[in-house]
Amino acid sequence: MIVDALIERIKEYKNPTVAGLDTSFEYLPEEMKRGVQDFKGVADAVLCFNKEIVDKICDIVPCVKVQIAYYEMYGVEGMRAFAETVRYASSKGMFVMTDAKRNDIGATAECYAKAYLGETAVGERTMTAFDSDFLTVNGYLGSDGIKPFLNWMEKKDKGIFVLVKTSNPSSGELQDMKLENGKTVYEYMGSLVEKWGEGSVGKYGYSAVGAVVGATHPKQAEILRSQMPHTFFLIPGYGAQGGKADDLKVCFRKDGTGGIVNSSRGILCAYKQEKYAGLDFASAARHACIDMQKDLNNAIKG
Amino acid sequence: MIVDALIERIKEYKNPTVAGLDTSFEYLPEEMKRGVQDFKGVADAVLCFNKEIVDKICDIVPCVKVQIAYYEMYGVEGMRAFAETVRYASSKGMFVMTDAKRNDIGATAECYAKAYLGETAVGERTMTAFDSDFLTVNGYLGSDGIKPFLNWMEKKDKGIFVLVKTSNPSSGELQDMKLENGKTVYEYMGSLVEKWGEGSVGKYGYSAVGAVVGATHPKQAEILRSQMPHTFFLIPGYGAQGGKADDLKVCFRKDGTGGIVNSSRGILCAYKQEKYAGLDFASAARHACIDMQKDLNNAIKG
Repeated sequence: MIVDALIERIKEYKNPTVAGLDTSFEYLPEEMKRGVQDFKGVADAVLCFNKEIVDKICDIVPCVKVQIAYYEMYGVEGMRAFAETVRYASSKGMFVMTDAKRNDIGATAECYAKAYLGETAVGERTMTAFDSDFLTVNGYLGSDGIKPFLNWMEKKDKGIFVLVKTSNPSSGELQDMKLENGKTVYEYMGSLVEKWGEGSVGKYGYSAVGAVVGATHPKQAEILRSQMPHTFFLIPGYGAQGGKADDLKVCFRKDGTGGIVNSSRGILCAYKQEKYAGLDFASAARHACIDMQKDLNNAIKG
Repeated sequence: MIVDALIERIKEYKNPTVAGLDTSFEYLPEEMKRGVQDFKGVADAVLCFNKEIVDKICDIVPCVKVQIAYYEMYGVEGMRAFAETVRYASSKGMFVMTDAKRNDIGATAECYAKAYLGETAVGERTMTAFDSDFLTVNGYLGSDGIKPFLNWMEKKDKGIFVLVKTSNPSSGELQDMKLENGKTVYEYMGSLVEKWGEGSVGKYGYSAVGAVVGATHPKQAEILRSQMPHTFFLIPGYGAQGGKADDLKVCFRKDGTGGIVNSSRGILCAYKQEKYAGLDFASAARHACIDMQKDLNNAIKG
């Protein structure tokens, strides 16, 4: 089961980190950007950058999260770089999460599920499009927008992470609103997530239906951890967004399991930090991952 | 202003219809599918199908809505077909809406805004990726996930439609929940949409921030029309999903403005209906659009 396997890799590497490949062309070192004039040039450079990062961290970081928006903005060529990044990270043995926050009504959600977790039929053959281990989704449309993902997850041993409490400053505008029944919207969404995961709980007690819970809202995260005992958390917001290791330790059980923490710019742009001066971008990324690992483990075990 | 221009086109054509290009390869006539073995073949066939539909309806239908999930499931080649469909429909003078329900935190929403409404910088140049007139978005993350879209809308005269009350059966699971303040979640989302649109109200009284309001939930649609006087509606759910013209007339003001109604399968697959027997797929689509136009106008004016 995919979440069991992810947890085992986290234990093996002693590292609950997912490296976010939100690779804007602007993040690349000057020498990689020089002379690039079009989306094809951007896509080639971004892919090259991503591959070097993956090569440098795949033995210490369990998973990459590829934020698809950063590729969509470079058009069809960007999507090619996205597809090849997903493929490359998989080929290096990393778990691959596509962060796309997809959502739609049943028949259309089925297409998204095929695109990222399942396969698409062409005549008598079936093929994969952007084959990932995990996909982030948005649950605003309710169960029938989620079921197609659950079906493909079961068929292909995949997982999803549903937005529950997001890391951005205005997440509370809707998510913190109180319902008549006394629960907040994010707590209610959390209860739906627990229900959607009932059929897929693995040996560590977590289902294949995870939740996105921002590191920037520790109070809400603590409530969700207690109300969602079977849900594994994807925790964005650490580092550049302001979330600290101490804030997010509430997402973890006493046994040290419970979630995986994302950092993107902190890793991709590490080479720009004084702390990592003199290192090439990939070596700086590796050092940033090691520093993050120590910081997280100190907090989670402390 | 884009919504004013859309309304003028609707008036000119006497047709509040948006044709949904949710073009699954499976919808195509057998002779277009024969021998296709890979995503490239699928993409070529789908694009060819879409172009013939656009050619046949562009003088009577104001707008197409391209549902991106149906292209993502065919990988990078599918995205090429998507991009070229958007470009082709634009070149034929149609308004183009990308139905992608995108959503993310601010920095990432900015990437989506660039991809679908704005432009992306590469060195000293800027280029467009999937340049559309309108984009559907999901507001679960609140204002800072919406602002990047508002900025690009203003710069480039574009519009968005935010999910408020979706057409699917389980939309009520979250959207119909009552908040402590007495409003439902969909009413509250509607109030956010009205607020986001305050800065962009055009001469017909509607802002560039529209709302998705399903034709399948007439009671909720009626409430929303009265609570959202400045919001133009994108109304899915007519036809194949069960929404009737009589159900959705509550979305319109007495002057006949107020929304645009989507049909996808009812148009794309019209050639399979007994009613249109003997017609090629594009001619059947045109006839289905004319029948839909009559049906809508009867209800809206009735």
